[in-house]
Amino acid sequence: MQVDPERHSRLVRAITDAGLDAIICSSATDVLLCTGYWPVMSMSLSVVTADGEVHAILPEDEQELADATSGAELLTYKPSSLDDISNVGTRLGAPLAKVGRRLGLLNSKVGIRVELSVQPEPYVVSANFHHSLTGLISSVLPQTTLLGCDDLLENQKAVKTKSEVAHILESVHLASYGFGAAKSGVQPGLHEPQVASTVQSAFDCASEGSPVQRSYGSFFCMSGPNSAKAGAAFARTRYRKLQGGDLVMIHANTCADGYWTDITRTYTVGQPTLRQREIGSAIDEARRAALDVIQPGVAARDVDEAARSVMRAHGFGEAFTHATGHGVGYAAANANSLPRIHPCSPDVLEEGMTFNIEPAAHFDGYGGMRHCDVVAVTGTGCKVLTDF
Amino acid sequence: MQVDPERHSRLVRAITDAGLDAIICSSATDVLLCTGYWPVMSMSLSVVTADGEVHAILPEDEQELADATSGAELLTYKPSSLDDISNVGTRLGAPLAKVGRRLGLLNSKVGIRVELSVQPEPYVVSANFHHSLTGLISSVLPQTTLLGCDDLLENQKAVKTKSEVAHILESVHLASYGFGAAKSGVQPGLHEPQVASTVQSAFDCASEGSPVQRSYGSFFCMSGPNSAKAGAAFARTRYRKLQGGDLVMIHANTCADGYWTDITRTYTVGQPTLRQREIGSAIDEARRAALDVIQPGVAARDVDEAARSVMRAHGFGEAFTHATGHGVGYAAANANSLPRIHPCSPDVLEEGMTFNIEPAAHFDGYGGMRHCDVVAVTGTGCKVLTDF
Repeated sequence: MQVDPERHSRLVRAITDAGLDAIICSSATDVLLCTGYWPVMSMSLSVVTADGEVHAILPEDEQELADATSGAELLTYKPSSLDDISNVGTRLGAPLAKVGRRLGLLNSKVGIRVELSVQPEPYVVSANFHHSLTGLISSVLPQTTLLGCDDLLENQKAVKTKSEVAHILESVHLASYGFGAAKSGVQPGLHEPQVASTVQSAFDCASEGSPVQRSYGSFFCMSGPNSAKAGAAFARTRYRKLQGGDLVMIHANTCADGYWTDITRTYTVGQPTLRQREIGSAIDEARRAALDVIQPGVAARDVDEAARSVMRAHGFGEAFTHATGHGVGYAAANANSLPRIHPCSPDVLEEGMTFNIEPAAHFDGYGGMRHCDVVAVTGTGCKVLTDF
Repeated sequence: MQVDPERHSRLVRAITDAGLDAIICSSATDVLLCTGYWPVMSMSLSVVTADGEVHAILPEDEQELADATSGAELLTYKPSSLDDISNVGTRLGAPLAKVGRRLGLLNSKVGIRVELSVQPEPYVVSANFHHSLTGLISSVLPQTTLLGCDDLLENQKAVKTKSEVAHILESVHLASYGFGAAKSGVQPGLHEPQVASTVQSAFDCASEGSPVQRSYGSFFCMSGPNSAKAGAAFARTRYRKLQGGDLVMIHANTCADGYWTDITRTYTVGQPTLRQREIGSAIDEARRAALDVIQPGVAARDVDEAARSVMRAHGFGEAFTHATGHGVGYAAANANSLPRIHPCSPDVLEEGMTFNIEPAAHFDGYGGMRHCDVVAVTGTGCKVLTDF
């Protein structure tokens, strides 16, 4: 097991280019990026140096998972004990001091996250460092200068390595089991939680025999007028009963070992009406228009405009209330994840970027339709990772 | 709709006693504590002043949920727009400045969380402020002195109001649907994800007709030798097939509108063996011993010792590897949530405290058994909230 060499060389170059000696991360997806290990409880730290050293400090409970996925040098600590009631913040001090000494970080410039970020959750509970990471590092490495490295991390996450794209494909593969159960699961008379639960079960049982250690995440069902509200920043399954003629949106944010999906499909209860076929045609056409322009060097806002102009031409410009996409993989649902496929985006596409393309139309009181794919930029165009 | 008057008066008194003019919170359960509103995306702030003002700043997408549950003064902001790509950290500045001016916080002492905390997750993705909350407040309220209020918040969360206990009971009620499906769901030949999924579905569909806006959370299944690993800080459903003679642990961390449960039941595949009956008897006895001593004024460590001494007497002292319990309600799985029912705990029980009692025995390579209840301290003893 070794750390992904492509990611390792990019990270080390970025740390060097930023004039840093090291970066220290605590957020689960940041630790995954740096080490290949996806922490369960977010009680772990990763340290990557400009010299190419990669260390992770983790609770001993998680060592089995880290051993299976990471080539980092691992240091474990006991997250709790019957002998004292000190908390994790205190318990991290000694191993961090040890790593700091071992890596010569006593008089160094260290990058940490300082800005607000939106992150997918690795478990039902997570540690949150609030402001304490600064204090922790300063207490054990008092001569260290701390600097923000938020942009460095976000830029690294935007462009995936070949190995990371393969992980995202595996994640999409598991999610596809859920969608495989969706079409037949959408039946009049069922309530939204019943439909969501059928789809969720198909996903939850799909990891059988897969190389994935932990698959996780949620499927949502939004029907009829509730599907019109799916343009919000979050999805929500309510208690509505499906009725003939409904639009029914099934939305997934799922992951495999920390690599996330953001996928939506829309179904109809019974045969689609003329209006539904018209909306569906516009969305299909907008999707193809966006996919057609994706290639390295293209402005992300031009991809948005390709989809948006089709929606406008069909009279659905006002109904397409959100951006055409955003970075996906290390992020799930996060409009600010790079690249932003947004009318005002300054981002330029590069090979290896993965993001969603989600043309949609929302009509208050009636319903909404969205088709959300995850795509990867290739050398000459793009590959739809969600080709089901 | 008003803010829970019992909580409101306790919070205001605590803010005053701490010499603070206000507290500003961003973590989802902290905002819930202060306002009754449980944020979806953790992109909300609550402000409570020593004068008794309670404000929440939230994304406009979440207003419907906040209106239904909170008596706080609500200010909304647009979390995203097609007209610019600024992020949430930036968008929160203007409404926070407005609240600060309105509440006279320009030259005040404001409490915020600074320490690491372990929090249950409200959604599949969440905003994390990292170190930026300090910067945000300082930029819009530059004369403000920021002080840590971690202990204030943890102490407030430890002792629930009558209304909060009722919310936790509703949460337990929804979780009980999952456990209702567990006994018949534990069958030889099924894999752990199939059992977990059956139980999860029963929970996910239970909120039908309930007053709860959002129920959420996970059920886990750990069988045979995997159940021996359940003493870890986290639960994990693996891919093992259930076999006759197995111990099978079903563990839940679920919530209803932000009030969390932490519940475990252990089943056997087929009739329990003599060894399993012996372990089960010891755990039952340890549980009763702990429940018997719980009342206001009792040292939390004496509750731990009541359970632990029974386990020792049965020869299972070494197998009971973790503390007897910890605070539950605003917390799910967090060994440091107050009160800590732990051999070294300095905590003293008070009426309204809610926590789990989870005597257990783990045997590497064989299996583990745990019975985890949620209880509330009453005026004269305790009430088991998970009486199923």
